[in-house]
Amino acid sequence: MNTFGQIFRLTTFGESHGPALGGVIDGMPAGTAIDMDRIQKRLDLRRPGQSALVTQRNETDRVEILSGVLDGVTTGTPIGFIIPNTNQHSSDYEEMRHKFRPSHADFTYTSKYGLRDHRGGGRASARETAARVLGGAFAAQALETRGISVQAYTSRVGDIEVPVPYTGLDLGLTYTNDVRCPDPATAEMMAGLIRQVKSEGDTVGGIVTGVITGLPAGLGEPIFDKLQSRLAAAMFSIPAVKGFDYGLGFSGCCRRGSEMIDEFTVDSAGAVVTATNNSGGIQGGISNGSDIYFRVAFKPVATLLRDVRTVTDRGEPTTLHARGRHDACVLPRAVPVVEAMAAMVILDALLIDKTTRL
Amino acid sequence: MNTFGQIFRLTTFGESHGPALGGVIDGMPAGTAIDMDRIQKRLDLRRPGQSALVTQRNETDRVEILSGVLDGVTTGTPIGFIIPNTNQHSSDYEEMRHKFRPSHADFTYTSKYGLRDHRGGGRASARETAARVLGGAFAAQALETRGISVQAYTSRVGDIEVPVPYTGLDLGLTYTNDVRCPDPATAEMMAGLIRQVKSEGDTVGGIVTGVITGLPAGLGEPIFDKLQSRLAAAMFSIPAVKGFDYGLGFSGCCRRGSEMIDEFTVDSAGAVVTATNNSGGIQGGISNGSDIYFRVAFKPVATLLRDVRTVTDRGEPTTLHARGRHDACVLPRAVPVVEAMAAMVILDALLIDKTTRL
Amino acid sequence: MNTFGQIFRLTTFGESHGPALGGVIDGMPAGTAIDMDRIQKRLDLRRPGQSALVTQRNETDRVEILSGVLDGVTTGTPIGFIIPNTNQHSSDYEEMRHKFRPSHADFTYTSKYGLRDHRGGGRASARETAARVLGGAFAAQALETRGISVQAYTSRVGDIEVPVPYTGLDLGLTYTNDVRCPDPATAEMMAGLIRQVKSEGDTVGGIVTGVITGLPAGLGEPIFDKLQSRLAAAMFSIPAVKGFDYGLGFSGCCRRGSEMIDEFTVDSAGAVVTATNNSGGIQGGISNGSDIYFRVAFKPVATLLRDVRTVTDRGEPTTLHARGRHDACVLPRAVPVVEAMAAMVILDALLIDKTTRL
Amino acid sequence: MNTFGQIFRLTTFGESHGPALGGVIDGMPAGTAIDMDRIQKRLDLRRPGQSALVTQRNETDRVEILSGVLDGVTTGTPIGFIIPNTNQHSSDYEEMRHKFRPSHADFTYTSKYGLRDHRGGGRASARETAARVLGGAFAAQALETRGISVQAYTSRVGDIEVPVPYTGLDLGLTYTNDVRCPDPATAEMMAGLIRQVKSEGDTVGGIVTGVITGLPAGLGEPIFDKLQSRLAAAMFSIPAVKGFDYGLGFSGCCRRGSEMIDEFTVDSAGAVVTATNNSGGIQGGISNGSDIYFRVAFKPVATLLRDVRTVTDRGEPTTLHARGRHDACVLPRAVPVVEAMAAMVILDALLIDKTTRL
Repeated sequence: MNTFGQIFRLTTFGESHGPALGGVIDGMPAGTAIDMDRIQKRLDLRRPGQSALVTQRNETDRVEILSGVLDGVTTGTPIGFIIPNTNQHSSDYEEMRHKFRPSHADFTYTSKYGLRDHRGGGRASARETAARVLGGAFAAQALETRGISVQAYTSRVGDIEVPVPYTGLDLGLTYTNDVRCPDPATAEMMAGLIRQVKSEGDTVGGIVTGVITGLPAGLGEPIFDKLQSRLAAAMFSIPAVKGFDYGLGFSGCCRRGSEMIDEFTVDSAGAVVTATNNSGGIQGGISNGSDIYFRVAFKPVATLLRDVRTVTDRGEPTTLHARGRHDACVLPRAVPVVEAMAAMVILDALLIDKTTRL
Repeated sequence: MNTFGQIFRLTTFGESHGPALGGVIDGMPAGTAIDMDRIQKRLDLRRPGQSALVTQRNETDRVEILSGVLDGVTTGTPIGFIIPNTNQHSSDYEEMRHKFRPSHADFTYTSKYGLRDHRGGGRASARETAARVLGGAFAAQALETRGISVQAYTSRVGDIEVPVPYTGLDLGLTYTNDVRCPDPATAEMMAGLIRQVKSEGDTVGGIVTGVITGLPAGLGEPIFDKLQSRLAAAMFSIPAVKGFDYGLGFSGCCRRGSEMIDEFTVDSAGAVVTATNNSGGIQGGISNGSDIYFRVAFKPVATLLRDVRTVTDRGEPTTLHARGRHDACVLPRAVPVVEAMAAMVILDALLIDKTTRL
Repeated sequence: MNTFGQIFRLTTFGESHGPALGGVIDGMPAGTAIDMDRIQKRLDLRRPGQSALVTQRNETDRVEILSGVLDGVTTGTPIGFIIPNTNQHSSDYEEMRHKFRPSHADFTYTSKYGLRDHRGGGRASARETAARVLGGAFAAQALETRGISVQAYTSRVGDIEVPVPYTGLDLGLTYTNDVRCPDPATAEMMAGLIRQVKSEGDTVGGIVTGVITGLPAGLGEPIFDKLQSRLAAAMFSIPAVKGFDYGLGFSGCCRRGSEMIDEFTVDSAGAVVTATNNSGGIQGGISNGSDIYFRVAFKPVATLLRDVRTVTDRGEPTTLHARGRHDACVLPRAVPVVEAMAAMVILDALLIDKTTRL
Repeated sequence: MNTFGQIFRLTTFGESHGPALGGVIDGMPAGTAIDMDRIQKRLDLRRPGQSALVTQRNETDRVEILSGVLDGVTTGTPIGFIIPNTNQHSSDYEEMRHKFRPSHADFTYTSKYGLRDHRGGGRASARETAARVLGGAFAAQALETRGISVQAYTSRVGDIEVPVPYTGLDLGLTYTNDVRCPDPATAEMMAGLIRQVKSEGDTVGGIVTGVITGLPAGLGEPIFDKLQSRLAAAMFSIPAVKGFDYGLGFSGCCRRGSEMIDEFTVDSAGAVVTATNNSGGIQGGISNGSDIYFRVAFKPVATLLRDVRTVTDRGEPTTLHARGRHDACVLPRAVPVVEAMAAMVILDALLIDKTTRL
């Protein structure tokens, strides 16, 4: 199913080498003013060719909105859009027509569908995430009107990690460097590592941290559609994601309950708040009004610019040597995708929550 | 929404202190022979009161099947069931009527719905997972007919961790001890830690590892409903879960691509297989025929048998001292719940996959 | 799929001859006061054995609510319920074990599932509608708080038809007679016809008319989930329904546009209203604030108390002579079912509409 | 929700006067050979300007497929498509900017969303059905590979009705005349009536009959998703539809059961078949292998080329005189839309049915 969400719904289509990819945003709240320049800027943050750290494929990713917005305001009808594919080098992929790239989806698509589009990964290309960034950009503008912000940043590349939690950072600095890390000193080291790995024809993975602020208490559904379930499903739908945790996550599971519980207190305005936020803003699947923070682990890119062993679709052993233009580290370009997916989850939760009482 | 799944669907209802909890299994394949004794045994593995390590609430959790099974065979119609609530001590919870328990869902339910059932956590009680175990038990019996098995075990409690990966263990030993750890020496240490923590009125968290074997290549949907998205959403819907990763997960994200890719080769039967399984059995959201393995992180139980600070529903500071019978560590009882959720995800994927081609 | 609705969702289970049928109501608005006596009375209106006109099976249909209601108020959590099966005469159905009853679902269930529960129609029994009446009764109490009412009545039995439209009737009289027709003189004639047909071992069909009043403008989704699509799907899900139209329906399609359009005018309060209501209260799939009225056609019951020709499940010609206790006309008992289904559609539309704007 | 279907899913977007309308087909079976010329021809059958009987708007409706088809074969990935809007006369609609057209959706959209696109009906324009015809054309090509055909024809216009049931007609003649009636003599009379009504600035409604042949027994879900529920919902989602029945429908509900039941017999090949087909091919919501036939009632077009009374969006009484190019009768252009919606319902049912057994 190529549709995401329950009320705010994004449906996407498109392969990396057809005429265009695109999608449909359904359930966008009517009457929301949209700033199209900022929407396009979000797309620009994801596209390749932005810096020396990422792939030099120079996709322009210019979106065309086909419906659902009139005079800069959403009408409540679905927002159809396309992002034409340009700068395609299909010949780069001729070798992959009959060879399965290791740790890519070539073999699994063929197993499932009996055939596949071999050009540039086809539907499995990370290029599909452009449509998600578009969907998230609309969602984010709706959330802004409620004072809710969704931000993410590169918190780890290989062994290099930001040494402080998000509360010690100025997230306004995230997009001021190519790595998308709000800690300038760490960003510099990460950039160095990516350049080195790239020079070796190798790749490296890392972690994106996400932070959601301004959320009211009460969002999320208590049993199967817990807010953390929705966020996790969203993050694992991003190519290359291998792990997700929130609050103190994996590290917290080794501690004692007495170190972990968030006692309640009353703030100066008389509101019930927690004294700490080890829980990461969610209890019983429902937001408690504190910040939600989470980590998303990305594996290293599987396309190496060196020989790898594989087999053909006839089961014959062979080797493959990737050419073309590839990322040595997806983290920088993944940051706006994480933000987009989280924004869509939160807007959807906000809309569903309106149905709780008549 | 209290329904899980797309084709194989489990809907659950019930609070910890009403007459019964229960649910409806919809989309169970028709014509599947069901062994009700084994179904009941799955429930028994989850219920409280089984050992000195877990809560002494002696819930019997006896399921009554009300429809959908005729002469031991599923008919394709929905399977309604109830699990009566017994051994309830509502008075244990009288103190919680107006006090929010820290790191529980009392405050968030009240924020969302404007009211809550304070007895035993109400709908947020982990008792709701009994219905999931029932659903998973049906799914598992269907999967067995296809040679697919879903297993889980306690791989970490506090700082104590099983020292080898699942491939070095005999998973048949999991249920031979109270901790549900297939490594007897580690199990003994874990049990010791739980006893010690319990004696201090404290609690401890840990990790459950899951393993799915026998899966054909081709299961899972490639974009938003990736197999890992479905598994993650399933796991995060379990109370107390704070993290999920699969394959090399968080640890793999710090490595180089050249260490991580799973090269393809051909096995003795001529089938395409991977030489390693760092990916954890999924590529591009679709199973590749290798084992799927994953980790689920559980926070320590939030109910401490000591004084904690909190506020009342009128916003007045107060303290709370939990009484009643509580788990010092949920891991042992979480193992069958993890197995149940994973079994439902896999059966659903198997059924959906049948619609890929006409 | 045994679930109905998008936000307000009813899932049902149960065969006519198992221990119980039941279901789960999900998405019921939190904080709604529930009058359980009135809920039970709705069930009583549907059950068999109420009068000489309907089957003398004396099912008591007493509902047990298992969750989701605390101190007479809905909590927002799912409402599980069962209605035990009593007064079963399984032996009445022994002959049907291997014979397909004509115009029943015996053959089609067997074709689909490979097996069937032959006792009393199994899952295809109209007894399943008891769960719908329960769901509709909850929905109706929520709608009442908004001044919305859903009513239905028998408007035709065989050739006997109420001679005036609903606007010329006092719908408060519907349940004052066994036929559920608010026009006493016509009701008398209908009752006579049903008695006559019954005495001949035959059956007769008819029409139920439904009327929804108090609806605000703006409910319904404009394209695929038009309000009329949802109502139609709901009505055709009731056993024995063969036709549905709304507004002037089939008769209006033979007229000229100039006779049919509903011109707009302004009422004494300054509100935009239509001067006529040929459209039946919906335009473009969305309610316009006028009454919605519709017709539902029921075929005559297929169970005749006389010999009919059929075949066995081995394909051998045979005859079948139904015994047991059957309705000669389902219309009287169908009226509360039509009301229930319509109430659930409208409450669902009301809840979905809340998500239109942020 | 702008998505139709459960497994085979069509999502549409687009207003009549934006750059394009379009959509996404999801769940199309992989490996289906597609004849794009025949797809385009289906669209041509729906478009305006084909004959003197229908509107002279000369929309070309040329579809562009953007994904999901490779070398003429479906790949299992979503099929994105756009149909550019051309030949728009927005100025024709300037008068409607502030006036509500009677029996159109102007008022209800404004009530729901707080604003509307007034140009050409915006999203409520019947032009949206072009996307449905495209979706149906793909579905029909998949159904053909299984020997299933879906056909429809104009069976009534105003008082003029085809005098025989579908079994007495050669449905191959349907598209040989402008009315899309397979009975040439009746078609001539219908055409005369439409010309006369058009000359008076008036409009007329009618009935489309649909016929589905070649269906296996066992399709459809027994309770809420009965095959007739899905067909009814599909038909009522088409603009201007006011009624639907199947089998003997409304007329059968006035008869006796003894006249109506379809006794079973065995055909020359030994298969269980019904001796008659009063039921219209469905029992208990599931196909029985006989033809499915149904009627769809369309109201007369609401746009009259004469003065009508209405109000402005400020509630001021006014008159409106439609200009532009409008249909005097939608029936001819509705025939391919009915076929498209039915084809999508049947393909979806066929795919869902594959999940019934493992």
